[in-house]
Amino acid sequence: MKLVVIGGVAGGASAAARAKRTNPTWEVMVFEKGPHVSYGSCGLPYYIGKVVDKIDALIARRPSQFKEQGIDVFINSEVKAIDFDKREVEVFHKEEGSIKRYGFDSLVIATGANPVVPPLPGMDLEGVFVLRTLEHGMRIRDKLEEGDVKRAVIVGGGFIGMEMCEALSEWGIEIVLVELLDQILPPMDKDMADLVRAHLEGKGIKVLTNHGVEGFLGDNRVKKVVAGGEEMEADMVILAIGVRPNVSLAKEAGVKIGKTGAIATNERMETNVENVYAAGDCTEAKHILTGDPVYIPLGTTANKQGRVAGTNAVGGSEYFKGVLGTAIFKSFDIGGAMTGLTEKEALRRGIPFKAAKVTARDRARYYPGSQDITIKLLYDPSSGRILGCQIVGHWSSIKRIDTVSAAIYAGMGVEDLYRQDFSYSPPFSPVWDPLLIAADRALKT
Amino acid sequence: MKLVVIGGVAGGASAAARAKRTNPTWEVMVFEKGPHVSYGSCGLPYYIGKVVDKIDALIARRPSQFKEQGIDVFINSEVKAIDFDKREVEVFHKEEGSIKRYGFDSLVIATGANPVVPPLPGMDLEGVFVLRTLEHGMRIRDKLEEGDVKRAVIVGGGFIGMEMCEALSEWGIEIVLVELLDQILPPMDKDMADLVRAHLEGKGIKVLTNHGVEGFLGDNRVKKVVAGGEEMEADMVILAIGVRPNVSLAKEAGVKIGKTGAIATNERMETNVENVYAAGDCTEAKHILTGDPVYIPLGTTANKQGRVAGTNAVGGSEYFKGVLGTAIFKSFDIGGAMTGLTEKEALRRGIPFKAAKVTARDRARYYPGSQDITIKLLYDPSSGRILGCQIVGHWSSIKRIDTVSAAIYAGMGVEDLYRQDFSYSPPFSPVWDPLLIAADRALKT
Repeated sequence: MKLVVIGGVAGGASAAARAKRTNPTWEVMVFEKGPHVSYGSCGLPYYIGKVVDKIDALIARRPSQFKEQGIDVFINSEVKAIDFDKREVEVFHKEEGSIKRYGFDSLVIATGANPVVPPLPGMDLEGVFVLRTLEHGMRIRDKLEEGDVKRAVIVGGGFIGMEMCEALSEWGIEIVLVELLDQILPPMDKDMADLVRAHLEGKGIKVLTNHGVEGFLGDNRVKKVVAGGEEMEADMVILAIGVRPNVSLAKEAGVKIGKTGAIATNERMETNVENVYAAGDCTEAKHILTGDPVYIPLGTTANKQGRVAGTNAVGGSEYFKGVLGTAIFKSFDIGGAMTGLTEKEALRRGIPFKAAKVTARDRARYYPGSQDITIKLLYDPSSGRILGCQIVGHWSSIKRIDTVSAAIYAGMGVEDLYRQDFSYSPPFSPVWDPLLIAADRALKT
Repeated sequence: MKLVVIGGVAGGASAAARAKRTNPTWEVMVFEKGPHVSYGSCGLPYYIGKVVDKIDALIARRPSQFKEQGIDVFINSEVKAIDFDKREVEVFHKEEGSIKRYGFDSLVIATGANPVVPPLPGMDLEGVFVLRTLEHGMRIRDKLEEGDVKRAVIVGGGFIGMEMCEALSEWGIEIVLVELLDQILPPMDKDMADLVRAHLEGKGIKVLTNHGVEGFLGDNRVKKVVAGGEEMEADMVILAIGVRPNVSLAKEAGVKIGKTGAIATNERMETNVENVYAAGDCTEAKHILTGDPVYIPLGTTANKQGRVAGTNAVGGSEYFKGVLGTAIFKSFDIGGAMTGLTEKEALRRGIPFKAAKVTARDRARYYPGSQDITIKLLYDPSSGRILGCQIVGHWSSIKRIDTVSAAIYAGMGVEDLYRQDFSYSPPFSPVWDPLLIAADRALKT
């Protein structure tokens, strides 16, 4: 019995590894169009920012390591078509320049996502980068190593944009962050995002919201960015305006695409086609709170979905519960974290809510390094059920978002949150943990 | 209407403040036998260790600040007797040398706990200290400031003992930690405690388990500690072998003492006597998991119980849900945290359990500062319900114990824990958060 996995980065690598472990009698083949498999693309900003010295550090497993496990990994091998009648994939092996066909009994589609690249004038100028793969990361760092980048413009104020502000600042260059919307951090509420903005500005980053990028000027090399009617000088542009699920291959083969634009699956990660599974950034997930399919491509989700797809593809039984959109980032000293619904998402969906927002200390007031932490808690006005949480504060203190994620999963109300027996000692929190203070505020609102 | 609060540190200060806020028409009086109220005794090791410069930093509110809130605080005023028939307390005002009686309609007993002081030879030698109040902390630091302490023996390997190892090491002195049992950290399991022990030893602390202290030798000043049949030199001894609830006053007055030796209350913090409440380290709490009364005196619990007692004492309505024994400490670079039941506690109570233990990385492997974190998860063998968790690792990564505390509160099983949508980004955790890895291990055990 043969399992073919299309894509070998996060979802695909997890699926292949888990499949082989679940049922070692299956032959497992992975086709990856790029030159690398099983790497942590979330680490790229840290490679670019010289926090990590060698790109190799981001690679979890090499093809040879898969081979030892009995998994055949083909790099530089792009699947061009899926034939469900013959149950074959058609693969273009770039190095050999050959096209071959491989049969499968089960298939896992883990084709990932592509960075959004708008058709703007000057997009192909040297110095305009996107950041998605190891190669992208290497190209950006190589450029910086050349030493002639003085001004960089980061287009897109999302999580990657935040991380890139810190990464590029390590090179001592001027940085402008450009965002189309009226706030940075589009997934978060503006009031919370503005706290992060103030921090970035304090670090010397110029932040321009309400600035749509119109194009790039230069000869061979980018010299200026045109955004919001303004021209600004730049020797480097990082485009980080989001990703789109890479579903063309699946779509052409007849795999059902959901409303979000990503591949639709059930909890077993099965698509509409028998024995065909999908996992990772090409795939939707169910939102645990609303039950709706959502597209929130994240490394953790990809790995989890990959495990489930890999298990089920070879006759095992596993399911993926869904997501709460829990996400976290660090930029300079500050960080942001979120889980569940934001105020604007609740408004958009017509979900009734109340919000409680507090700013407290993240450690005992007298303990060195004690900082402000701001927590915004969303909850149902009648039942008190927690709907979402956003945290902005010193990055070392915001992992407590996971506690709220667990609380939402469990269906807790703000009163339950207030009743929690959380740990206390001066280096870790005030006597009243900020989460308890937020819950207390909610109870009094 | 009059509320009298006996004790003004954590539970008492919270009770008084909350009572006045709940019902400002009540007259609120606090009698504190010591010279300070409303301070964070958990901060004392940080004052002794020069992390905090001035003892004042540990004081949350002074009597004058209570006065502004309309609360009368009497310091150096010890309640000597409670007369339930006349509904009066008899107070000895030390400074004036006078005894006065004050009437009350409601009473909150927050007499705290006393350090255990065994009747050993040489206990009264200069240089032998306990650590409980601000005065204790000041005396220890004053002694250290004198500059002639070269060798200290810490008796008791509990949480305070751990913190004192770090604190005293700041003074560049030799430290021996002596513990009666065969492990340090008696509330935790030995396998987890041994990880902490290895860290302390790596920092130059000499750790002697199975060493019961037999006495102290010296003329006026302590020179040697006798423990486990050995004599060891010491110019300073810190006795940190636990505390006992200070219940003599309550007991004499007829307030019911529970099996744990602390004051028994219901969820409203009411004692057996009408309109008489108790809160803080003199009081029991219900264990959320087992439903049994337990005595786990901690600052957070004291504050919570104080709020509940204060609210109810003046006609409000609040309840205290109970505790899971969630606790945390830092010592040097390492920390330990626990919630729920340990293996030895489960054995002692005859509660069936399984344990899963994992050592993982607390951040992405390639992110600087990434460290080992060891998690031990206890769960019910049939239902999978989580019973307890212990964590040892770099202190910056162990606050995730709160997430498990919330999971236990919610009645989650290890499978639920495995399904959690926890946050991920390289500075914060590996793709698979250590808690998920622990849950995964439990599912496979």
